[in-house]
Amino acid sequence: MNQYHDTEVIINNKRYTLAGYESEEYLQKIASYINGKHNEFKNRDAYKFLDSELRNILIQINIADDYHKAKDKIKEIEVDSESKSKEIFDLKHELISVQTKLSTANKEIDELQKELNETQKRVVRLETELNDTDKIR
Amino acid sequence: MNQYHDTEVIINNKRYTLAGYESEEYLQKIASYINGKHNEFKNRDAYKFLDSELRNILIQINIADDYHKAKDKIKEIEVDSESKSKEIFDLKHELISVQTKLSTANKEIDELQKELNETQKRVVRLETELNDTDKIR
Repeated sequence: MNQYHDTEVIINNKRYTLAGYESEEYLQKIASYINGKHNEFKNRDAYKFLDSELRNILIQINIADDYHKAKDKIKEIEVDSESKSKEIFDLKHELISVQTKLSTANKEIDELQKELNETQKRVVRLETELNDTDKIR
Repeated sequence: MNQYHDTEVIINNKRYTLAGYESEEYLQKIASYINGKHNEFKNRDAYKFLDSELRNILIQINIADDYHKAKDKIKEIEVDSESKSKEIFDLKHELISVQTKLSTANKEIDELQKELNETQKRVVRLETELNDTDKIR
């Protein structure tokens, strides 16, 4: 947290001293953004005929519009982010399920391999026995 | 897209006619938000001694602060959302890799099962042959 301090900013060609905790850098960014609005409005013909109060209210409306559009965007990204979280949850579940199936399949392979080895040994024994019997006859 | 139209709003106890494409509902929301700021400031003692120009600039700074905080939040959620996208990408890859391994394992099970069946049949044939040989002797 920053300390409480004064920051001088120039807004619409007037100097203001702002007291607060926000950093000098942040407040200069805010001032520069507001000056951008004043300059933008000054370039509009209709604006020249408005009194200072109305100009200021128009700028307040314009900045508030930026804020509300940003808030809408936050909502939009949050919905998207939530759907991504759900997708991650589902993918993790599916991954665990497939991993479990793979582990079961690998165990089955080991058992089948063992059984096959035993059966193959049995074949060899039986063939030997049969061969011996043939020799005896 | 809405049609160009006039909307009457009341801001800081004064009536203004705004011309534009934004919906009446949206502009009333903006007006109500700005009035909230004016009311919030009116309740501060120091504010009473400020002239109208300075009051308006302070409100502009305050709204611009809301806007910049919202923009920072957008950046924050976007970073989080990007990292979620990366996680989804990685999980999908891992899932495909495990699914491929499972499919290979299942094929191996089929082949082993087939080979085991053949070998078991061979055992039965050899046992029968051996039995028959015993009977002949």
